[in-house]
Amino acid sequence: MAVALTKAAQVLTLAGDQAPRAGAAMAELAMLEHATVVVEGERIAWVGPHAEFDAARFPGVETLDCAGKVLMPALVDPHTHLVWAGHRRDELELRLGGADYEAIFAAGGGILSSVRQTRATSEDELYAQSLRRITRMRACGATTFEIKSGYGLDLESELRQLRVARRLRDEAGFRVKATCLAAHAIPQEARGSRAARAKFIDEVCTVILPAVVEAGLADYADVFCDRGAFTKTEGAMVLDAAHGLGLSLRVHANEFGHTGGAELAAEFGAASADHLLYLSGEERAMLREAGVVATMLPGTSMVLGKPFADGRALVEDGVPVAIATDCNPGSCAFENLSMVLALACYGNKLAPAEAVVAATHNAAASLGLAGEVGRLVEGMSADLLVLETDDYRDLVYHAGSPLIGAVYSRGERVVG
Amino acid sequence: MAVALTKAAQVLTLAGDQAPRAGAAMAELAMLEHATVVVEGERIAWVGPHAEFDAARFPGVETLDCAGKVLMPALVDPHTHLVWAGHRRDELELRLGGADYEAIFAAGGGILSSVRQTRATSEDELYAQSLRRITRMRACGATTFEIKSGYGLDLESELRQLRVARRLRDEAGFRVKATCLAAHAIPQEARGSRAARAKFIDEVCTVILPAVVEAGLADYADVFCDRGAFTKTEGAMVLDAAHGLGLSLRVHANEFGHTGGAELAAEFGAASADHLLYLSGEERAMLREAGVVATMLPGTSMVLGKPFADGRALVEDGVPVAIATDCNPGSCAFENLSMVLALACYGNKLAPAEAVVAATHNAAASLGLAGEVGRLVEGMSADLLVLETDDYRDLVYHAGSPLIGAVYSRGERVVG
Ligand SMILES: [Zn+2]
Ligand SMILES: [Zn+2]
Repeated sequence: MAVALTKAAQVLTLAGDQAPRAGAAMAELAMLEHATVVVEGERIAWVGPHAEFDAARFPGVETLDCAGKVLMPALVDPHTHLVWAGHRRDELELRLGGADYEAIFAAGGGILSSVRQTRATSEDELYAQSLRRITRMRACGATTFEIKSGYGLDLESELRQLRVARRLRDEAGFRVKATCLAAHAIPQEARGSRAARAKFIDEVCTVILPAVVEAGLADYADVFCDRGAFTKTEGAMVLDAAHGLGLSLRVHANEFGHTGGAELAAEFGAASADHLLYLSGEERAMLREAGVVATMLPGTSMVLGKPFADGRALVEDGVPVAIATDCNPGSCAFENLSMVLALACYGNKLAPAEAVVAATHNAAASLGLAGEVGRLVEGMSADLLVLETDDYRDLVYHAGSPLIGAVYSRGERVVG
Repeated sequence: MAVALTKAAQVLTLAGDQAPRAGAAMAELAMLEHATVVVEGERIAWVGPHAEFDAARFPGVETLDCAGKVLMPALVDPHTHLVWAGHRRDELELRLGGADYEAIFAAGGGILSSVRQTRATSEDELYAQSLRRITRMRACGATTFEIKSGYGLDLESELRQLRVARRLRDEAGFRVKATCLAAHAIPQEARGSRAARAKFIDEVCTVILPAVVEAGLADYADVFCDRGAFTKTEGAMVLDAAHGLGLSLRVHANEFGHTGGAELAAEFGAASADHLLYLSGEERAMLREAGVVATMLPGTSMVLGKPFADGRALVEDGVPVAIATDCNPGSCAFENLSMVLALACYGNKLAPAEAVVAATHNAAASLGLAGEVGRLVEGMSADLLVLETDDYRDLVYHAGSPLIGAVYSRGERVVG
């Protein structure tokens, strides 16, 4: 059964090859006007100017008039921690009152508070809470999600988080790539001595990561390499072990300073280096040369009152840029990637077209999904948005407005 | 016919007197837990703990289970320019590329571009475009709107804009307070000589404002007193004329510097001084002593990349604070006041409870509507929101998420 979405004012196809886009190509939307997209089953069967649309090629095709609307790829969220239990709203109030994230963290709050809540929660309850969140996230335009563990920090709880991510994929039908972030923080029980700390890192490398790979529960490994988290040397140990186990890599890098995370991502050829609030021209060059996607998280800068990553410099230095919500219980619980796309313009100084590429094709490329989602091209999965406006720039101009009229995921209309 | 919204996890009543709240009172939500609100016709008939709800008092009452949800006053947007024609998305792209608002303005872009588009548009078309916008704004939680003219800058066009605001009230049923902002900018035809400029200001005072009052089209007058707009002396002339005609006053003040706007608002006892990015302790004291509500517009700071007004200092210095979208075609076309409420926390450093008061009761008070909307109290208009969460702080924690399950305006369920 085919559906033709016809006569759209704008179709942002993003047609082009599968490599993540950098420099001037960051703004290449390959936009068609007065155009039509045909969805057949789970796939895009045809895209072109409406004048060239031949309904006879698709017997029984149903037509949906999209005059005055925009069709664009569904959003791809390449950095989330969306599987967690409980909340940290009290901490948010504290922080708005002036308390510092690193100070809250040092006091045993922060990540460790979510670790306590998540460890104490059953898999089914964790699944129920996470399903509510991801469903709201999809209503905001994203159909593909990277999901990290990292609120378990022990074997059983890390596996439980990753099983929930798997169930969001297999039972609930979201497109999910999972990342083991056992090296998210040093758990409470491993604090207090250097030996205990070393033992935890060894456990991550020799017990948790192998068990996760054995169970087939993760596509990526990640490490939080920064002040107050893991050193560059520790990060290298974790990435080395993960690489040896066949996992691809991502790195939480340079959120609090020039702490070696970006270098590590470049040295290990990671798929993505994320945060990057503090990044020198030399570090940008290293990312570019190593083919690492730079993933910016403007919501987190906003919530923490920190600077925004310099998106302009990344674009001008030829580094491919992605954007993500970072949806997590502490530093940024934002679920709306279309709003974060606007923040990437106002905060990170991307042009609207660059932000669209960053939240679709480049994000997909950083997840190894550039052949599947992120562009509206024949043969790709029919994951797309219908916007209730005739100009995609309204996602930025009218940031936060209810512009997403419909969301299609694998050809199915799941929202609207 | 009565509807009981029962067993809500939280009911933010904001019960208390009609004065705008300042200092510690800015956070007084008078919250009830496991509580019920009864709507009868257009009014709130009862509010209290569910255990005290007596259905027999309301024969035929329909019950709507709100367990796990939040009931709160519908939002009040006390500063918008939502009646305009066309758009300025191109200018937005320019500005993201680094161009300065004042520079765009000086080059004849900025406000004058919207003046050209609005003058050239028929009343019916202007109404249609504005109706689409205000309908989206209501979907984001606001049911009451202040609407300014100021894209006409001549008698006929100013009257046309205000007639559209009137039709949004009378034909479309929105609660609207209208403001004549003929002193928004010097129109093109009055630039180039001091005499022409003086003649325009005289026309505002002796022709436009009297005609607007004669037609009963405005509740307030406003003047843009700032660098690149009107001087303090010119502003005083306009406010003096408006006051003499019986209008209440609002002032665009201190957006670009300490340019006298806040002093003017205090001297004239304006209902509200708006923007206030640059504000000294002395200026805050003047506003407090004069009973002026300080209206912050965090969306505009975000779009223009300017500092945020210091909300913390306003609260601590005892000035009542309101927040608004500033929805306008140039410096901030945001339509979502619930998202702006979150920006007021992250940008202006209000606590979540303070931001709720700022966007409901204090905003209503600045519009002379504190007895009508902004609190959930027996006898007031049934303008309220049903949130799909059990904690109102999620409006900030999950900023931008689709949390507004229903909007009631005058007892009618208009959204959800
Ligand atoms: Zn993260
Ligand atoms: Zn304004």
